[in-house]
Amino acid sequence: MFVTFEGPEGSGKSTCLQAIAGRLIEAGFSMVLTREPGAGVFGGKIRELLLGGTEMPPESELFLFLADRSAHVRATLKPALAEGRVVLCDRYADSTVVYQCHARGLDEAFVREANRFATDGLTPDLTLLLDLPPEVGLARLSSPDRLDREPLEFHQRVRVGFMAEAAREPGRWRVLDATQSPERVAEQAWAEISARLG
Amino acid sequence: MFVTFEGPEGSGKSTCLQAIAGRLIEAGFSMVLTREPGAGVFGGKIRELLLGGTEMPPESELFLFLADRSAHVRATLKPALAEGRVVLCDRYADSTVVYQCHARGLDEAFVREANRFATDGLTPDLTLLLDLPPEVGLARLSSPDRLDREPLEFHQRVRVGFMAEAAREPGRWRVLDATQSPERVAEQAWAEISARLG
Repeated sequence: MFVTFEGPEGSGKSTCLQAIAGRLIEAGFSMVLTREPGAGVFGGKIRELLLGGTEMPPESELFLFLADRSAHVRATLKPALAEGRVVLCDRYADSTVVYQCHARGLDEAFVREANRFATDGLTPDLTLLLDLPPEVGLARLSSPDRLDREPLEFHQRVRVGFMAEAAREPGRWRVLDATQSPERVAEQAWAEISARLG
Repeated sequence: MFVTFEGPEGSGKSTCLQAIAGRLIEAGFSMVLTREPGAGVFGGKIRELLLGGTEMPPESELFLFLADRSAHVRATLKPALAEGRVVLCDRYADSTVVYQCHARGLDEAFVREANRFATDGLTPDLTLLLDLPPEVGLARLSSPDRLDREPLEFHQRVRVGFMAEAAREPGRWRVLDATQSPERVAEQAWAEISARLG
C-alpha cells in the first residue's frame, strides 16, 4: 500500500506521517517512510540544488523534481512495495502538477506525461491532502526555504491547485482540515489508512 | 547564427570549436562559446552530478540534461542570439536523443517532446557531426568519465544514432570525418560556417 501526504509547507505532513508510522508499528506492519525531493544520496544532492537558492527557470525546477522522482521510484518505492511494505511518502507527483502547473503555469499536459515517464506509472493508493490557509501554514515555519518565500498569491494558487487535483480523483484523495490539532489530523488520517488495510 | 558541435568524446569537438572561434574573431564577428551540460553556475552543479559517478537510472540522467538545457537556453543561448552574436555550442539537444534513446533505449517520442519543452523550440541553424569510430575516440581520452567507461557496444550505438539523426535533417547537419587532422576538420567546419554567414 502506497500512501502519499500532500499539502503546503507548515501543514503538518511530516508530523502526521510520523504518527501514522507509530500506529503501523503497533499494528505490526513493515513500512518505509520517505519523501520527495531528497531521498537517498542522489536525491539529497538534487534537494540541495532545488532548495539552496540557485537561480533557475521553472522548467529546470520541473526537470530536477523529475530526476529525483525517477531515481526514488526505481530505487526505493517500487522495491519496497514489491516486498509488501507500506510506503508513506511526504510529497509525490501531485506536488509537481500543483507547484509547476497550477502555481507556476507550466504546460499541464506535458507535466502529466513527464510524471508518468518519471514514475513509470506508479500511482498512490491513497493521497492525504492536509489543507489549510497559506497564512496559517507560513506562520508555522521557522526557516522558510526558496519556495516558502514566494508571494502569498503563489501559495494561494498552490492551495486551489491541490483542491482541483483532489477533485479530479476523489477515490484516491482525502482532504483533511490541517487547522485542527495534530492529534485530530493523525486520527483522521489513521481512519482512512486502517480502513484500507482492512 | 546558432552552430552546434556533436560527436563522441575524443572526436575533437572542443578543438574544432576553438579553431572556428579564432576564424570568427579574425572575421570580426561577436560570438559566444558554450557547452552542454555545464554552462554557468547552475549548469556546473548539474555537470558535477552527471559526470561525478553518482548512481542514477537513465531517466534521472535524461531529466538532469533537460534541467541544464532549460536554464542554458533561457539564460545564455536565446539572449546571445537576440543580440546578434554567433553561438558555438559543444553538444545540444541532439546528444540527448542519441545517448538517451539510441544508446540507452528511452522512449524517443517522449524525449523529443521533452527536448522541445526544454529548448522552447530553439533549433540550431547548423550542426556539425564530428564522426569517427569509437575505438579511435576512446583511445584519445586521457581521463575517461562515467559515460566514457560504458562498454564499446554503447559507443557503437552512439555513432549509429548520430548518423541516424543527421539523416533525418540533412539540411541542418554536416558530417565531418574526425579521423582527419584537427586542421583539416577545422578547415571543413569553417567552409560550412562561412558559407552560411555569407
